[in-house]
Formats: sequence, structure tokens, C-alpha cells
Amino acid sequence: MASTSWPVGARDRLRTDESGTADTEERTPLLPSRQPTLLTKDFESLDYDRCFNEPYELLLKRQQQEHSDNKIEAIKWIITFLVGLLTGMVALYIDSIVKLLSHWKFNTIDVSIQKCSKEGCLVESLLFLLMFNVGFVIIAACLTVYEPVAGGSGIPEIKCYLNGIKVPRVARFATLLAKSIGVLFSVAGGLFVGKEGPMIHSGAIIGAGVPQFQSLAFRKINIRKYAFFRTDRDKRDFVSGGAAAGVAAAFGAPIGGVLFSLEEGCSFWNQKLTWRTFFCSMAATFSLNFFLSGLDSRDWGYFYLPGLINFGEFKCQSEESGGCHLWNAVDLLIFIVMGFVGGLLGALFNVFNKALTVHRIKYCHTKHKIFKILEAVLVAMVTTTVAFTAAMTLGECSPLTVEGHLNVSLEENVETTVRTYFCEDGYYNDMATLFFNSQEVAIKQLFHQAGRFSMPSLWIFFVCFFMLACWTYGVTVPSGLFVPCLLCGAAYGRIVGNLLENYIGYKTIYSGTFALIGAASFLGGVVRMTISLTVILIESTNEISYGMPLMITLMVAKWSGDLFNEGLYDIHIKLRGVPLLEWEAPTRSYTLKAKDVMSKKLSVIFPHTRVSTLIRILKTTVYNALPVVTIPRPSDKIHIESDIEQDDKGDCLLQPQDGHRDNMYEMVGKVIPMKFTGIILRSQLVMLLKKGGASPGGEDQETPFSYEELTEDYPRYPDVQDLDMSTINPEDILDVRRYMNTCPYTVFADTALPQVFNLFRSMGLRHLPVINHQGKLVGMITRHNLTHHYLEEELHRQGNNR
Amino acid sequence: MASTSWPVGARDRLRTDESGTADTEERTPLLPSRQPTLLTKDFESLDYDRCFNEPYELLLKRQQQEHSDNKIEAIKWIITFLVGLLTGMVALYIDSIVKLLSHWKFNTIDVSIQKCSKEGCLVESLLFLLMFNVGFVIIAACLTVYEPVAGGSGIPEIKCYLNGIKVPRVARFATLLAKSIGVLFSVAGGLFVGKEGPMIHSGAIIGAGVPQFQSLAFRKINIRKYAFFRTDRDKRDFVSGGAAAGVAAAFGAPIGGVLFSLEEGCSFWNQKLTWRTFFCSMAATFSLNFFLSGLDSRDWGYFYLPGLINFGEFKCQSEESGGCHLWNAVDLLIFIVMGFVGGLLGALFNVFNKALTVHRIKYCHTKHKIFKILEAVLVAMVTTTVAFTAAMTLGECSPLTVEGHLNVSLEENVETTVRTYFCEDGYYNDMATLFFNSQEVAIKQLFHQAGRFSMPSLWIFFVCFFMLACWTYGVTVPSGLFVPCLLCGAAYGRIVGNLLENYIGYKTIYSGTFALIGAASFLGGVVRMTISLTVILIESTNEISYGMPLMITLMVAKWSGDLFNEGLYDIHIKLRGVPLLEWEAPTRSYTLKAKDVMSKKLSVIFPHTRVSTLIRILKTTVYNALPVVTIPRPSDKIHIESDIEQDDKGDCLLQPQDGHRDNMYEMVGKVIPMKFTGIILRSQLVMLLKKGGASPGGEDQETPFSYEELTEDYPRYPDVQDLDMSTINPEDILDVRRYMNTCPYTVFADTALPQVFNLFRSMGLRHLPVINHQGKLVGMITRHNLTHHYLEEELHRQGNNR
Repeated sequence: MASTSWPVGARDRLRTDESGTADTEERTPLLPSRQPTLLTKDFESLDYDRCFNEPYELLLKRQQQEHSDNKIEAIKWIITFLVGLLTGMVALYIDSIVKLLSHWKFNTIDVSIQKCSKEGCLVESLLFLLMFNVGFVIIAACLTVYEPVAGGSGIPEIKCYLNGIKVPRVARFATLLAKSIGVLFSVAGGLFVGKEGPMIHSGAIIGAGVPQFQSLAFRKINIRKYAFFRTDRDKRDFVSGGAAAGVAAAFGAPIGGVLFSLEEGCSFWNQKLTWRTFFCSMAATFSLNFFLSGLDSRDWGYFYLPGLINFGEFKCQSEESGGCHLWNAVDLLIFIVMGFVGGLLGALFNVFNKALTVHRIKYCHTKHKIFKILEAVLVAMVTTTVAFTAAMTLGECSPLTVEGHLNVSLEENVETTVRTYFCEDGYYNDMATLFFNSQEVAIKQLFHQAGRFSMPSLWIFFVCFFMLACWTYGVTVPSGLFVPCLLCGAAYGRIVGNLLENYIGYKTIYSGTFALIGAASFLGGVVRMTISLTVILIESTNEISYGMPLMITLMVAKWSGDLFNEGLYDIHIKLRGVPLLEWEAPTRSYTLKAKDVMSKKLSVIFPHTRVSTLIRILKTTVYNALPVVTIPRPSDKIHIESDIEQDDKGDCLLQPQDGHRDNMYEMVGKVIPMKFTGIILRSQLVMLLKKGGASPGGEDQETPFSYEELTEDYPRYPDVQDLDMSTINPEDILDVRRYMNTCPYTVFADTALPQVFNLFRSMGLRHLPVINHQGKLVGMITRHNLTHHYLEEELHRQGNNR
Repeated sequence: MASTSWPVGARDRLRTDESGTADTEERTPLLPSRQPTLLTKDFESLDYDRCFNEPYELLLKRQQQEHSDNKIEAIKWIITFLVGLLTGMVALYIDSIVKLLSHWKFNTIDVSIQKCSKEGCLVESLLFLLMFNVGFVIIAACLTVYEPVAGGSGIPEIKCYLNGIKVPRVARFATLLAKSIGVLFSVAGGLFVGKEGPMIHSGAIIGAGVPQFQSLAFRKINIRKYAFFRTDRDKRDFVSGGAAAGVAAAFGAPIGGVLFSLEEGCSFWNQKLTWRTFFCSMAATFSLNFFLSGLDSRDWGYFYLPGLINFGEFKCQSEESGGCHLWNAVDLLIFIVMGFVGGLLGALFNVFNKALTVHRIKYCHTKHKIFKILEAVLVAMVTTTVAFTAAMTLGECSPLTVEGHLNVSLEENVETTVRTYFCEDGYYNDMATLFFNSQEVAIKQLFHQAGRFSMPSLWIFFVCFFMLACWTYGVTVPSGLFVPCLLCGAAYGRIVGNLLENYIGYKTIYSGTFALIGAASFLGGVVRMTISLTVILIESTNEISYGMPLMITLMVAKWSGDLFNEGLYDIHIKLRGVPLLEWEAPTRSYTLKAKDVMSKKLSVIFPHTRVSTLIRILKTTVYNALPVVTIPRPSDKIHIESDIEQDDKGDCLLQPQDGHRDNMYEMVGKVIPMKFTGIILRSQLVMLLKKGGASPGGEDQETPFSYEELTEDYPRYPDVQDLDMSTINPEDILDVRRYMNTCPYTVFADTALPQVFNLFRSMGLRHLPVINHQGKLVGMITRHNLTHHYLEEELHRQGNNR
């Protein structure tokens, strides 16, 4: 790819690539043909590292003089509380409205079915239901078509963000609106989707947005003090908090939320940040429960409600039989087998969904938007019809009151949610109970209704649900994955429990335990999360003694699933071509050195650069940062202008006029000894040009531009095309020495790759210059050079060369 | 300090210092006079970084060829399980024996008091009790005198280890024995100490030991394969797991255990490691509960016992009054105030204990060991006497059965543990209830016995306990801090609860909540832990709705305590002079550069070094790693032997004969341009000399020494004095190029300190070379250069210079 062939003007395109990787052709497409993917493939990296230059140090000094450190810290805590509060509110609003809509729908249908069961007009009921569901789903789909990034669960996007990649529009207010309204209708529309993923996404958007609103508001008052929040670093910290708050609100699992953020966010374990994240999730749980208590029981401030997801209390019912266990040591073996099978089922789910997604990317998304909506409508219609007919024709009727079951301390909830459709009086329909309830209620039924579900019903339900949920994830509606997977897995667990009870006569165990383990194993098999998922499930079941079984199940499920493919979120991320960094470098990568993976084609600038050159570089390259170099001393090979400035060591400050190929040096063949002196960001260069930082002789201003001036356009810096060229003299010279980061982290060319990877990953870097032992710049490493895909290719190439 | 003045032979002394910091005189002593401190001050750093050299790469290659990666991974998991299992067992054994001993003691005393109350021979009972307690404490003290590192809670030592500093003998088997036996007797001896800290320490020792036993055992079978565990990195990973398992076993808090390890361990959030740590704590909880169930209820495999610490179930009892809350939103304000006061009380505790500890270090520990034992005996006698007389003379008698209180669902435990001493029949003594029970039972009493404690009793108990616990922590016995602080704080909380109830008439709240919040605030004020403590307390109360109050209380307590001093663990660590690295660089330290803090006096070697020089350097310096340098080209200033080898770039490989001051270069005045080419560890050099790596011409061996050969003496490498000089020819030349780490992480001299600090801390480094932009070595940074104490001094000096 010749850098000069880039179209000028398409700003987003220009930003596609990170500095140092002009060799995009090496990133082979994952899909057979590079069709437009689900989302635009223009991903920008986030920079977690701080750029220490003169303006930044002046800012720190001023903050110290004004003692505003503590003030900033206090503001951060207040914002954190606000993020938690708002996330809790959004979760509450989603939950309440979904309940309202579902209630309305099921009540209407209920009346119709009761009537039609007698009058034999059930087709009318089905049409009624279809009308509801299709109508709701159309609303959800329209919103998602309008804001495509609002589709799906949002967790892949959050994962990317915390990993250090910004998916375009992922943190916009419009996305929040589309997502939080869309999810109401996709869930209420009877699709097999959850609302937890969207809640987490909403939390993350709130985390990204609140501090920005704050600083926007404050900027009018006092521009100086709050510039502190205008960095990727701060923004990402708040997004961590917001995501954690989302998990906390969705599952009532504040600790699980923190661990979710830690598991997905890469960085160094930062105690202060973790503590703040914890506070954020606590605030979300707290405010949610506060308002929930007010709404539910009119007793404001009663905090013992179980939160939005509630798996009910696991309690043995057969007290008369003496030693009833929730589980015992022997059961662990069964759980291991269940985990293994659950992992396989999850892998199968992922295989199907991946094939579907590839198909969608190739064929559906190339067509008009209306097709996306039509697909959603089709899914809604099929789902509704299947559920209705299955419940009507295949459900089994059982007597409603089994003595000895009803009077025990079951929660009322479980008993009152059985459905009696299509059965005689005094009987209930097990299939209808599962299909004509919200998924949360169905899960509870499976967890707590002992011996109420027949084997055929469970099998049919499992298969239908599995296929439909698999089809649904990826349709253009906001759609979480957690609850459908739990429900599907709970059915699988109940099947295992029934098998053991009826065919082997293994009766000492509580059947709900199997449902729970089945749910965990299937969910684990699909998403392959470990620590955070274990803690989330422990917190939602509120039964610490399930810790060990859940952990072992999830471990085995992840292991067996990993034999075949990756977690579903990772699959979707990869299909979008996002350069996600894994936890660790591939095991074999110790044979690689930094020099094997670095980009060797570099555009460099000199401490004093002519504006014309700078603009040419900025216009013709896609790099987000440019290394600043000097040439040690005038050598014979390179002609140097006679009047060129030299620094005190005799190094050249201004680039030679006949700079090779527009300062584009290839490091492989001809080694030009360029001393690495620093690195400067594209945004800084553009801001300097915009502010008129260049001067005829390259003299310094008396005082440098302030940090606030240079970051005032964050996060949407102008591009070089947006500059007013009439005010800029191309013959001026820009002195970047005060604005560049002179001492970024660097590695030697021979550094083993695991070391490079660890440095890059744990410091959250965006650009990593590679130098040799003489201090000469030899290459640059960015995120693209460290993805597993790229490294595996490099290893393969290396293997071939031997 | 002239390096040459170091005594030769005192191996431990020689290791005191890290490479690069010959300037120990800059580390001013913390105590007025440098008396022998509580422990020896010879702390060695741990190295979490991997050293990529040829033997290591060959090892990795061989592992890959033999596909032993998975085997090693599997072995790690098995060891992790073993660590968890053994930790659980040790915790169980401690708990059971303590219970047994206490039972025996209290039963005997019970009989005596019952008899003497009638016969008026209570002095006899007191003497009886004194005999028990003093006897027990003498055993504990003797064990601790024999192995001094077994004294105290052990948490400071674990904190140091996870931070990267090895306190001598901290992870030895003898320490485990002394600690786990000693704690039985210090707790049973009626001292106000806990057994949780020692359990955590035991877990850590098991974590450090088990993989070593493994590899010792395996070494005899196949030396090659399991060399993998012979690094500080692996050892520290297992210690993390063991410590987490200890917390999990002690508090029944597996998640809290993981967070404890994360909070105290520094490193980069490593998902795999965290997951393994989690597994380890789960295994500990699981195995503990398994055996506990077998021992307690003879029903093996019943996992619903609450674990060792059990705060009982928090349940409102006044059901008739309608809306009884554990807490509500308004109470949060009260909790904030309580947290503030608790933090102050904790700070006061720390002030007293610090003064005492300083006194002990200065005066007691200089004397004969017998004085330590005598002090312990004195504490035991005073404690016993105070408890006995207070219970006898100051306790208040209340009627035993208040109707409406007893029949409610209190746990039987709470009712059966009231003590009726010194009262009429049908009455019980509140003071005796607190003093004549184990501390855990007393805590439960305070948490759950509504309205049973009179204000004077609570006050007297609080004051006595506060003073005695403060005196006890630091006495030469194994002594945890958690439970005494909880008990003391619970009394404080009950006082607040009583005040509110009796004087303000605030009665809607459950009084146990105040006790819990008081306990949390006081413990938080003393130890200042945040995340992990919150989670530990949430898990031990088993009541998730207390999450928010506990968090806020701990936050406020930490904040108010921090106004005055540090946490008690940190105080003890500082008093020992351990160079602990904090979480972050001091806020003002951005004005410092790497060059301001680095050590400029360096001993360096050349790729080819004469053995005589090497031995001289090793004998006369204390550095644990030496930078390897070359001199770019023969210059006029330095005389170079004519036959000296040069590498392909013309750089000198062998040091000039007239090497300045035995290769001790001072970087300040005379800059000698030395190109940094790598770094080699002292242990590697000594092993190379021992193995006969040197040769007359410095030629390479055909194959380098293997990784296993070079690490076979881990963790106790021989020192240079231990070498058999007869086999070593001082005129030989050692070629270190294959063994040095050529590409360690480095920083530029102008790098801002926060960046340096982050790199060092998150990568777990031990040595960080500082280079300039020309690739020349200019200094070294080690742990000592980055302690807050050193940095503050440097900032102060900088401030003075301006």
C-alpha cells in the first residue's frame, strides 16, 4: 500500500491505521472477501499512557500550586457516584418498562387464550400475539438500523473499549438512547434475548459521557482546571466504572462487576481505580435497590430486595427424607461431566452463530437496510409461532397441586407463574409455563419447581430455544446473551437431573442444583468468561456454598469449549477485524524478537520541520504518532543545507532538504542512522499548526501552548484537511521539541516478544518505538503488530524460513 | 560507604543491598539510633521479571518440542490444589486445637468458679486461670523466640513478600511449625490475639513450600523438566495462592482471599494467575468445609457450614413492630460518623502501638531473649487479672431470660454462651460473658444479643480491651490482629447503638448492625485495607445488603485514619526498614527524572572479563546484578591492551587493564562512554564460575550451560566465598554474552519518575538500567531508589536547590 495513494478528506479512513503500520497488507482479511463488515472497520486505539511534555508538566505544576489535586480527586469520586446512580436508574427503567410491556402483552394474550380455549379460536390468539411481538420488534429493529452499534449485546464493544480500541460511535448518547429503548421492545417482543448486556453497555456509555458533560459544563466556567478529564486514560477509567456498575445493576453483583471490568480491562492492577470502580458498582446496586424498594414496596430505603435478577433461594424441600443436600462431594463428578457437555453445547452454539454471522456479513448487510428489519420481523414471527404451537400441541399437562410440594417454603412467585393454557382445570402446561413467561421467570421455574417438567417437554424446549436463540443473536436488535443462555442451559441441566433421577435413581440431590449447573455450564461454554462469571453467578444465587461447583463447572466448560472455538464475544470481535490484544503473547512467540514484528517503514520528522513537509506527511500517511529523530552529524551521504541549525551535540535539527521519499524511511535496506529523540502525536501536530505554532525561523514562543489549548478539541481533534491553509505559511518551521514526549517507553530490537507484549499490554500503550543499543530508531510497534493473528502469521513465516 | 570496606564472608550481609545502590548512606535510618531491629534488616528483593538469555530460550524450545507446556500447566494446577487443601487443613487444625484447649481451660475454670462462688475461694480460681494462661503463653513465646519471624500476625511479612521483598526465613518450614503451634497457645492462653493472621501466613508458607518439595522430589527423577518452578516468579505466584487460601480458610471468604492477594501483590493483573489463585482459595474453603462437616456433624460432604469465622445470621427480631430494618438510607449518615470515629480510634491504636514497638526495638530486643518471654508472661498475667477482676467486680447482672427475646430465632450458640458467674441464679454477668468466652463468641454476642449489655460494662470492656490488645500486638507470640480489632470495634459499635437507643430514642434499627459497623470501622482504622477487607466482611456476614454500609464505613475510616498515620501493618513494615514499594509514585514526583533518583556509582563488567576482576568485584560489592558494557572504540583517554578482542563493530569486549577503580565508575564527573549491552545476575556469575565457565582465551563452550545447571542451587545460590578457588584460574576469561539478559527493560535518563515507577512496579523488576538517548549506560534504579521515603527526600533536596 503506497501511503500516497490515500484519499485525502476521508478523515475516518485516514485514522484507520496506527502509526508505524503502513503495511496493512500484511493483515490478511479474515473473511474470504473484504465485504463491508457488521460495523465499519475503522477502529481507533486508545492511549492509556501519559505523554510527558512541557505543557503537561506545567499543568501538573499548576495543579500542585493551586492544591487542586484533592479537588480533582473529589470530583472524580462525585462523578463516579453519578455514573453508578445513573446506571442504576437506567437499569431500573429498562427493567420496569420491560415488565410493564410484558405484563400488558401477556395479560391481553391471557384473556384471549382463556376465551379462545373454550371457543376454539386459538388462531386468533396467535395472531394477536404475533401482532404484539412483530410490532415491538419492528420498533427495536428500526432504532438499531438507525444506530447500528446499538445492536447486539454491547459486551463485545465494551470489551474492545476496555482493551484499548474505540469502536466508532460506541459511547455516544444516541447509542445509549437507541440501545436502552430498543432493548425494551426486543425483550418485550418475545425474542430470545436478554436485557443484561444492553444494561452493561448503557453503564459504559454513561461512564464515558458523564465526565465529558461535566467538563463541557465546567469549561465555560473555568477552562483550566478540568482539562484533566480530557484524556483517553481518564475516559477509560470511567468506562470501567460504568461497565462494572452495569453488571452490578443487572445481576445484583457488585463484586462481580468489578471483576468483570478487571477481566476485560487490561491494565496494571491499580488499587485506587479498582476501589473507585467498586464504589461505582456499589452505588449502582444501592441506588437501584433504593428506588426498587420505593417502587415495589413503597418502603423507601429497604435494601433487602434481591435486585433485578433473582434466582430465588435454593433450599432443600424434602426435609422428611432427612439428609437432603444441595450437593455433595460425589456430585462434583457429575458436575464435571455436565460442565464438559455444556462446554461442547456452547461450542456448537458458537459454531452455528459464527456461520450465521459470516453469512449475514456477506449477504445481508450489503443489501438495503430494510432487509435487516425484515430479518428481525421474520425471527420474531418464527419465534412466536414456534413457542405458541409448541406450547399448544406438545406441552404436557400435569396436576396443578401436588400435595407436599406446594406447602413447602417455595416462593410464591414460582407457583403463581405456572401457566394452565390448553389444559383442563386443575392442570397446568409445562411447555406453556416456559414459553409464556419472561425468561427470568422461566429460569426460576426450572431452578425451583421440583419434578414439574416432563422429559419430552424439556427436550423440545431445549432444542427450540437453542436454535432460535442462536439465530436471534446477531439480528439487528439490542440483544443480550446471558439470560437466554442461562435458560437454555437450565433446561439442559433439568434434563440431566431428570435422567439421573428417573433412570439411575439418584434422588438425594436437589434438582434445582442440576438446573443451575447446567445453566452455568452452557453460559460458560458460550461466553468463556471465568473469574467474573463465577462471582456473578455466586452473587446472583446468593449461596456461597455453590462456589466450588460453579467454579469447577465453568472451568471445565471453558476448557472443553476451547477445544473447538473461542467465546462468542471473541468470535464477533474477530469477525469485525478488531485488533484485540489477548492476555498473553502466544506460547511459542518467545522465538520472535521485537525486530521481527515491528513496522520498518516509518515516517519520521525532525525537531524542526518545515510546515510544508509536515502537512505533506500528515496528508499522505495514516500514522497517529510520528517519531522525532535527529541525524547524528552531517555525513557525506546526505546533503545538508549549510545554514542548518545544529544542537549542542552537533546533531541536525532540521531534516535534510532531499529527505528520502518524504521522510519515509525504510529501515531494512539502507540504514540511515537516526537518533531517536521523541515521539509526537498527530493530534498534537495538527493542534500546533492550527494554533499557529510555526514561525519563520522555528524560534520558540516565550511560553509554550498550554495543555488546555492543545487538548481543547478532545476527543474530536481536527484533521489536517480542516486547517485553514490561508493562515499557515508552508515555509515556516515548527519546533516540536517542547511538545514531543522525549522519553516514552522503548524496547530494544532484540527484546523477546513476550517482554514486548507485556510492556505494551500492561502499560496500555499505543505506540512503542524500537531502538537499537546505539539509541537509533529502528522501528515502531503498535497494536496491530501484537495481535495473535499477526504473531501467528509471523511465527508461521519464521517456521517456513528455517 | 566505600564498597571495599564490606566484610568478606558475611554472606547475608553482603546481599543486603541491591545492585546499583552502593550509596546506602543516603538511606537515613528511621530510628534515632540504628539499633538492631525486630528482625534482621537484610531484605532481599524478588525478581518477577524473566531473564531472556540463551539457556532460557533453549529451555523454552525444549519444552515446546516435548510438548511439556501442558504438563507443566497441569502440574501447576495440581500443586495449586494441594496448596489450597493443605492450607485448609492447617486452618482446621489450628481452629480445632484452639477450641479444644479453650474448652478444657474454660471448663476447668467453670467448675472452679462455680465451686468458689459459693465457698468464697475465688482467688484460687484466678490462680488456676493464671496458671493456664501463663503456661500456654510461655509455650507460645518460647516457640517464637526460637523462630522470631513467627511472631506477630505474619501479614506484614506476606505483604512484603507479595510486594517483592523476601524477609529472611519467612517462608521456611520451621517458621510454619513455630507459627502454627505457637498460635494455638497464644490464643488459648487468653491473650487478646487472633488466629487469622497466622493462618494466612501459614497458607503463604505452604504456597512457597509445596512447589519446592515437588521440584526437590522430581529433581531426583528428572532434573530437567521441573526446573521451571525454580524462579522467584513462580514461587511468588504460589505464595499469592497460599495467602489467598489462608484468607479463604480463615474467614470463609474465597473471593476476599483473591482480592487480598491482588491488593497486596503488585503485579500486572494476570488473568491466568488470578484464576489459579481463585481456585486455590476455593480449594481451601472446600476442603476445610469438607473435613469440618465430617468432624462436626459426622456427615461428610455437607458444605453449608459457615466456615471458621461466623458472624451469625443478621435478622431482625422485633417482627411485631412491623418494619424492622437492618439499616436504611438515613442510617448511612450515622455510619459515616461511626466510620470517622472508628478511623480515629484506629489511628490512636496505631499511635500507641507504634510508640510501644519503637520502645521494644530500642530497649527490649537488645537484651537477652528471656526478657521477651518475660514480657509475654507479664502481658498474660495482666490480661488474665484484668479480665477476671473486671468480670467479678464491674460486671452487671441481668435476668437471664427476657421473654420475647429468647424464643425468637436466635442461634442457640448465642444463648448458650452467656456466663452466669458472680451473679445470682437466673441472672447472667455481661462482662463475664465477654471475657470468659473465646473472642469469636464474644463478637457474636455483641452482634446478636439485643439489649443485653449495660453501658458501663461496654465502656470498661472497650477501654480494657483496647489497651491490652494494643500492648499485646508486638509481644513475642504469634498474634493476629483481625479478631481483636473486630471485638473491640463491636463493643464501640454497641456503645453507639445503646447511646442512640437510650438517649435519642432511635429504635428502628437492629442493634447488631451498629456492632458490625463499629467492628468494621475500627478494624479499617487500624489496618486501612480497602477492597479486600470490604469483600471479606461481606462474605463473612453472608449478607450482601451490608455491602454499601461496610464499604462507606471502611472508606471513611481509612480516610480519617490516614489523616494521622498509616495502617498498623505498614507502620511495622516501615519500622523494620523494609523498602516496600507503594501503589503509586508520590503525587509531586513528576518533577523528578530517572537521572535524579538513579544510582550513579556503578560496578560494571565487560562481555569478556578476567576471573580475577570478577571475583574482586563480587567480593567487594553487594550488587545483585551487574550491567555489562562495552566501550565503543579505543579512545586516547583510556589505554587499551593491544591484543584486546573487539567485536564486529569495533567495540571492546574486554575491559581495559587500568579499569578505573576496579570497574567502579562514577557517572557524575567523568563520563566514560560505556555502551549498555546487557545485565547479568550475581547468581549467574557465581554459578558460571562454579561450573568452570571461564577459559584461558574466553572462548565459548560448544553448548552453553543449561538453564537447569545454572539454577540448580535455587533458592540458595552459593556466594563467591563458597567457591573452590583451587579449581579456578584467576587469569581465565569468562564470556558472559550468552548468559546475560541483553534486552532488559530500560528507561531514558530523562524519563519522568511516575513512568519509571509504573514500569518498575507493574513488571516486578529488580534492576532497571538507565540509558541515555545514545544507548550509553548512565545509572541503575533498584527498589531502594523508588521507595517513597527516598523519593520524598529527593524531592526535598530538589526543593532546597531551587
